[in-house]
Amino acid sequence: MGIVVQNIPRADQSVIDGLAAAGVATVHEAQGRTGMLASHMRPIYAGAQVAGSAVTISAPPGDNWMLHVAIEQLQRGDLLVLAPTSPCDTGYFGDLLATSAIARGCCGLIIDAGVRDIRDLTAMGFPVWSKAISAQGTVKETVGSVNVPIVCAGALIEAGDVIVADDDGVCVVKCADAATVLAAANTRLAAEEAKRIRLASGELGLDIYGMRPRLAEKGLKYV
Amino acid sequence: MGIVVQNIPRADQSVIDGLAAAGVATVHEAQGRTGMLASHMRPIYAGAQVAGSAVTISAPPGDNWMLHVAIEQLQRGDLLVLAPTSPCDTGYFGDLLATSAIARGCCGLIIDAGVRDIRDLTAMGFPVWSKAISAQGTVKETVGSVNVPIVCAGALIEAGDVIVADDDGVCVVKCADAATVLAAANTRLAAEEAKRIRLASGELGLDIYGMRPRLAEKGLKYV
Amino acid sequence: MGIVVQNIPRADQSVIDGLAAAGVATVHEAQGRTGMLASHMRPIYAGAQVAGSAVTISAPPGDNWMLHVAIEQLQRGDLLVLAPTSPCDTGYFGDLLATSAIARGCCGLIIDAGVRDIRDLTAMGFPVWSKAISAQGTVKETVGSVNVPIVCAGALIEAGDVIVADDDGVCVVKCADAATVLAAANTRLAAEEAKRIRLASGELGLDIYGMRPRLAEKGLKYV
Amino acid sequence: MGIVVQNIPRADQSVIDGLAAAGVATVHEAQGRTGMLASHMRPIYAGAQVAGSAVTISAPPGDNWMLHVAIEQLQRGDLLVLAPTSPCDTGYFGDLLATSAIARGCCGLIIDAGVRDIRDLTAMGFPVWSKAISAQGTVKETVGSVNVPIVCAGALIEAGDVIVADDDGVCVVKCADAATVLAAANTRLAAEEAKRIRLASGELGLDIYGMRPRLAEKGLKYV
Amino acid sequence: MGIVVQNIPRADQSVIDGLAAAGVATVHEAQGRTGMLASHMRPIYAGAQVAGSAVTISAPPGDNWMLHVAIEQLQRGDLLVLAPTSPCDTGYFGDLLATSAIARGCCGLIIDAGVRDIRDLTAMGFPVWSKAISAQGTVKETVGSVNVPIVCAGALIEAGDVIVADDDGVCVVKCADAATVLAAANTRLAAEEAKRIRLASGELGLDIYGMRPRLAEKGLKYV
Amino acid sequence: MGIVVQNIPRADQSVIDGLAAAGVATVHEAQGRTGMLASHMRPIYAGAQVAGSAVTISAPPGDNWMLHVAIEQLQRGDLLVLAPTSPCDTGYFGDLLATSAIARGCCGLIIDAGVRDIRDLTAMGFPVWSKAISAQGTVKETVGSVNVPIVCAGALIEAGDVIVADDDGVCVVKCADAATVLAAANTRLAAEEAKRIRLASGELGLDIYGMRPRLAEKGLKYV
Repeated sequence: MGIVVQNIPRADQSVIDGLAAAGVATVHEAQGRTGMLASHMRPIYAGAQVAGSAVTISAPPGDNWMLHVAIEQLQRGDLLVLAPTSPCDTGYFGDLLATSAIARGCCGLIIDAGVRDIRDLTAMGFPVWSKAISAQGTVKETVGSVNVPIVCAGALIEAGDVIVADDDGVCVVKCADAATVLAAANTRLAAEEAKRIRLASGELGLDIYGMRPRLAEKGLKYV
Repeated sequence: MGIVVQNIPRADQSVIDGLAAAGVATVHEAQGRTGMLASHMRPIYAGAQVAGSAVTISAPPGDNWMLHVAIEQLQRGDLLVLAPTSPCDTGYFGDLLATSAIARGCCGLIIDAGVRDIRDLTAMGFPVWSKAISAQGTVKETVGSVNVPIVCAGALIEAGDVIVADDDGVCVVKCADAATVLAAANTRLAAEEAKRIRLASGELGLDIYGMRPRLAEKGLKYV
Repeated sequence: MGIVVQNIPRADQSVIDGLAAAGVATVHEAQGRTGMLASHMRPIYAGAQVAGSAVTISAPPGDNWMLHVAIEQLQRGDLLVLAPTSPCDTGYFGDLLATSAIARGCCGLIIDAGVRDIRDLTAMGFPVWSKAISAQGTVKETVGSVNVPIVCAGALIEAGDVIVADDDGVCVVKCADAATVLAAANTRLAAEEAKRIRLASGELGLDIYGMRPRLAEKGLKYV
Repeated sequence: MGIVVQNIPRADQSVIDGLAAAGVATVHEAQGRTGMLASHMRPIYAGAQVAGSAVTISAPPGDNWMLHVAIEQLQRGDLLVLAPTSPCDTGYFGDLLATSAIARGCCGLIIDAGVRDIRDLTAMGFPVWSKAISAQGTVKETVGSVNVPIVCAGALIEAGDVIVADDDGVCVVKCADAATVLAAANTRLAAEEAKRIRLASGELGLDIYGMRPRLAEKGLKYV
Repeated sequence: MGIVVQNIPRADQSVIDGLAAAGVATVHEAQGRTGMLASHMRPIYAGAQVAGSAVTISAPPGDNWMLHVAIEQLQRGDLLVLAPTSPCDTGYFGDLLATSAIARGCCGLIIDAGVRDIRDLTAMGFPVWSKAISAQGTVKETVGSVNVPIVCAGALIEAGDVIVADDDGVCVVKCADAATVLAAANTRLAAEEAKRIRLASGELGLDIYGMRPRLAEKGLKYV
Repeated sequence: MGIVVQNIPRADQSVIDGLAAAGVATVHEAQGRTGMLASHMRPIYAGAQVAGSAVTISAPPGDNWMLHVAIEQLQRGDLLVLAPTSPCDTGYFGDLLATSAIARGCCGLIIDAGVRDIRDLTAMGFPVWSKAISAQGTVKETVGSVNVPIVCAGALIEAGDVIVADDDGVCVVKCADAATVLAAANTRLAAEEAKRIRLASGELGLDIYGMRPRLAEKGLKYV
C-alpha cells in the first residue's frame, strides 16, 4: 500500500517496436498462447497498434490519484497499465491526463476500469484499451502503488513488461522474454505468409497441415 | 399505469445548448460527480453530442406502444428517454419511429433496452444511446406511461430534465438546476484550458495541484 | 460427436439475395418476430449486410479444428456458423482461415465465441458477427461435427438454413421457408415506404395506425 | 455530497408490520407491479421476511465511512439501504457493523454492493439483501450522504420509504402510500386464498379467470 | 405465434424414473456430453432431483398467459419448460400457478426467466430451475405457443423430450433416445462404482485410466 | 505448456490452521486488504471454512486431464486451485475426482470454472468454491501445467501459497508471509472482540473510532 518503485527494467526499444509490428495474435501464439488479458478489454477507437513498457498502477476503486504519481515515472515509449483493487467502471482518465501523459512520452493506456473524453482522446490519437467507457468521475483520497506487480484483466503484469495492444486485445510479454518472443513471432509471420498464398489459391488447410489421417484416427465420419 | 402527462417544464434552449457544448464529463463534474447513467448505455455511432429536454416513457418489456404516444408529446429540442419496467433488450425503436420523431423535432433517444435499424438511424443522423442493439420486435398490447418519473439505467429522470449525451455516456441535469450547472461547467472549462497548456509543456499534475505534501502525509513511499 | 454431413439443402441464390437486401429487422418481422440470435452477437465492423446458406459447426471450447473441416464443405454463397459446446470466448478464427474461406466462396462467419485479426478481416471485407473479440488461440485436439443442427446464440440453426446478418444482428430463416419469408418481407417493405412519407410529414402513428380508441379502452389517461 | 438529513418521515409500525407479513410479491402487485429492485439483489440466507423504514446511504465505491454515520440515525424498526455512486462489489458491511446496527434497532440491510461475514450475520439473524458477497474491504476516506434520495438496484428510494424484503427480492413502497398499499395487499391475499382452493382441486385458471374467449379472439389455435 | 399442440409423445414412465435416478451429470455423459442447458439455470432449493416429459411454452417477455394454457395440457409426470421470446427475468410463476400445476400432476418447472414465491414453492416441494428469482409481475395480453419446439437456455427442447434436473443443472434427452440413454447411463453408473472403490483406496486415476504414456507422448514434463 | 513442478514450498500446518480459524475477511484485512479472488467465486454449500497449501493447475478450456495429474502431487492439507486458460464454465470436477482427492488428503477445490455432482460433494463434505455449477463434461486431450503460477479469478496464486476460503469468498496468502499474516490476523481478532462488546451496548462507531472531527473537516453537514 503506497509504494512507488522508481527504477524498472525495460526491453530494448527495437524489440518493443518489433512486437508492436507483429501484433497481438502473433505475439500471443509465439509465446505458447499465453499472456492475453480478458476479452472485455476493448480499444476506444479501431486501428491503433502499439507496444510499450508497462508502468503499472494499483488504484483504489473510484480514485485516480495514483495516475498523477505514475505519470512522473513515465519514460518515452512507456504504457500506463491500471488495475483497480476492486471491480469498478468509473472513468479514471480523460483528456487532461492524456495531455500530461503524452508530454512525458506515453504511448497508451490499458485500464481494467473506465475511461472518458474518448472523442478528445481519439482526436489526439492517444489509444486506450478499457473495460468501460464512463464519464463517472473519481476522487483523490486514497493512495495506491506504482510499478508493483498487478493482475489486470486476468493477467499478471510487472513493471517493465512489454504490453502489445491492437484491435484484437491486449497481450503481456515478460520483459526478460521479449527478444525471444520477437524472434518466434517473426518466424511465425514468415511461415504464415507462405500458407496465405496457398490458402488464397483454394488449397485446403486439411491438406496443407496434413490433418486428414489424425481426424480419421479420432473417429471423424463423413456421411 | 397508463398516464400521459402533457405539460412538462423545460429549461431554456440556450442553457440546453450550453450543456450540449460542455459535454457529459464536464457537466457531470460540474454538478458534483452526479447524474451519470450506467456505463452500459452506449451510442449507436461515434461523435454525436446532444442535449435535450426529457420526454420520459415507462414501457412494459417487449412492448413499444407508448413510443407512439410519447412522440405526440414531443416539442422541438426534446429527447425521448425510455425505461422498461423489467430488464429487456428487445428492439423497441427503428427507422419509422425515428422518421416520426424527427418530424416532431426530436434530437435523440436514450433507451435502457434495444434499438434496431441502426444503419438507417446512422444515415439519418439520429443519435441513440442504448443498452443493446437488437432487431427483436415488439408488440403493442399493454399501456405504460409518458412523462412520469422513471429510473433509466440507474438514474432518476423526470420529464423536462435536461439530458446530455456524447461518446462518454449519458448524464441527467435536473430542470431547475440547469442554469446553475451550466455556469459551473463553463467555469470548469475555463480552468481546464489553463491547466492543459501547462500539462502539455511537461509540467506535472503533482506540482500543478500541489499534491506532494498530502501524498507524503498519507504515507506514499518512493523506493 | 465427429460427424460431417456432406449434402445439405440450400435455398435459391436469388431468394438468399433478396433476404440480404431486405435486412435483418424486416426479415425477422416477416416471419412473425422469430429467428433472432441473441443481441450479444455483434459485427466486427459496421455496414456489412449479407445472407448465405449455413454450414454449421459444433466445436469444443477452445478448439478450432472443425473450422478446417467445414471449409472443405463450403460452396459459393455459404456462411460459416459456429457454436461451441460450452460457453467460451477464445479466438477461433483469424485472417488465415478467412483467406481459405474466401477462396472457397464463403461470405461471412457467425460465431458464438471469439474472433481475432479483426483489422485484417476488416481490410479483406470479410464480415464476422461474434460474441467476443479475442486473440486467445485455440488447439486442434478434439473433433466436433459439421452440418449437424446446432443452437447458436439461442437460436436453432440447421445446415442450409438462410442466415441474414447486418448491423442489427443475425437472423435465421428455415431453408424451406425462405421464399415465403422473402415474399412477406417484400410486402412489408412496400407498406413501410408509404408510412414513412406520412410520418416524415409530421402525421402521427397514433392516427395512421388508428391507435387512439384502443388506448382509451385500455385506460390510458391524459393529464 | 456530504449531507446527513436527521428528520425523516416514517410510516406507522403497524402498517410496516402488515407489509412485512404480506411479502414482496403481493405488495408489489398491490401497487400496480411497481417498486421492485433489480433481481440481482439476493438474500444472504433463505427465509427472512422483513419490512422497515429506509435510512438511505449514498456512498463512494469501496468506502464504508457513511455506514457509521447512518447507524447513528437509526430508530427501532429501520432498515439500512446503501447505493454506491459507481458500480462496485466491495464488502462494505460485516459483523461489527451489524452488531452496532442491531444495538440501534435495525432490522436489516439492502446494499447494491458487497457484504461479508455472512456466516456470522446468519448466526445473528441479521438479514441482508446484496448484489455480491465479498470479503474485499473498504476505506474510510470520502464522505457521502445519509437520508438523501438514492437509486438502489434500479429503484428510487427516499428516506422513510417502506422497504419490504423476502426470498423473492426487495420492494419499495412510498412512505405516504404505505397504508393504502397495505389495504390493497390484504384484499389481494383474501382473493388469492379462494382461488388457491379451486386450483388445488384441479379447476383450471383458464376457466376460473374466464380466459378462453379472449384467447380465441387473439387467435390462439389448438391443433 | 398462437399454437397449442395437444398430442405429444412421451417416453415410458419407467425410463423417465430411471433417468431421474441417474442424475444430470451421468445422463449428459451417457449421451456424449450433450444436452445441457446453460449453467445460469439454478434450482430455487437444493436437493431436488426429477425427470419428466417436457410441456414446452414459448412466451412473450413479461407475459405469463401461456402458463395457464399449458397447465391444461399437463399429464401426471410432466414438467413445464418455458423460454421467453426475448431475454427477460420477470417473475412468471408463483404459488398459485404451482398449486394448479401440482393438481394436474406436474413435477417441476424449468424457466429461462424469473420465478417468485420461492419460500412457498420450497414449502410445497415444487422444484424450479430458473435464470432469476424476481417478484416482478407479468401481464396477460399476448398469446404465445405451447408444445412447439423452443430453445431454452441454449438447448433445443421439443414437447415430450425428457428433462432431467438436479443440483448440477438441467439436461434434455430426446424422447426417442430416452431408453437408449438410460441403458448407457446405467452402464456408466456401474463402471463408476468400481472406480470409486479404487480411487477411495488412494489408487490414482493416472494409473487406473492408463494415462501416463499418452501424457508423456503429449510432452508433459515433470520437474 | 506441459510442466509439472513436483517440489513446492508449504507453510507450517499450524499456521495454515490458524489462518483457517481466522477466516477470509480477517486474513484479507490483516494483509492490507489484498489477496481476494473475485466475488464470483462461491461455495457449493454454506458453512465450510478451510485453509490449505495451493496445488495449482493451468488447464485448457473444457479439458480436465490435468486434474488427474495434480492429484498425484497432493499432500495431506493441500487444496487444488484450477484456472482455465480461457474463460469457461464447463464442469471439470465431480464425485469421482473428489473421492480420489480426499484419498490423497486434499481439503478442497478452488476453480474459476464449473463443478458438478454437487449433491454428492456436499454429502462427502468436500468443499468447492467455483465460478459455476455445470454438469457439462470435459475431454482429456490437451496437456496443461501443474504447480506453475496462475491467475485464478483475478488473483496471482503460486504453488504452496496458503488459500483461505469460507462463506465470504477466497483469499490467497503468500507462503512466505503466512506466519506474519496470522500474527496480524490474531491481533486484529483480539481488538475486534473489545469493540464488539462496546458496539453491542449501543455505543457508536463514530465515537469509538473518533470519527466526528475528521468528518466535520471533510465537510459533512447535518441538516
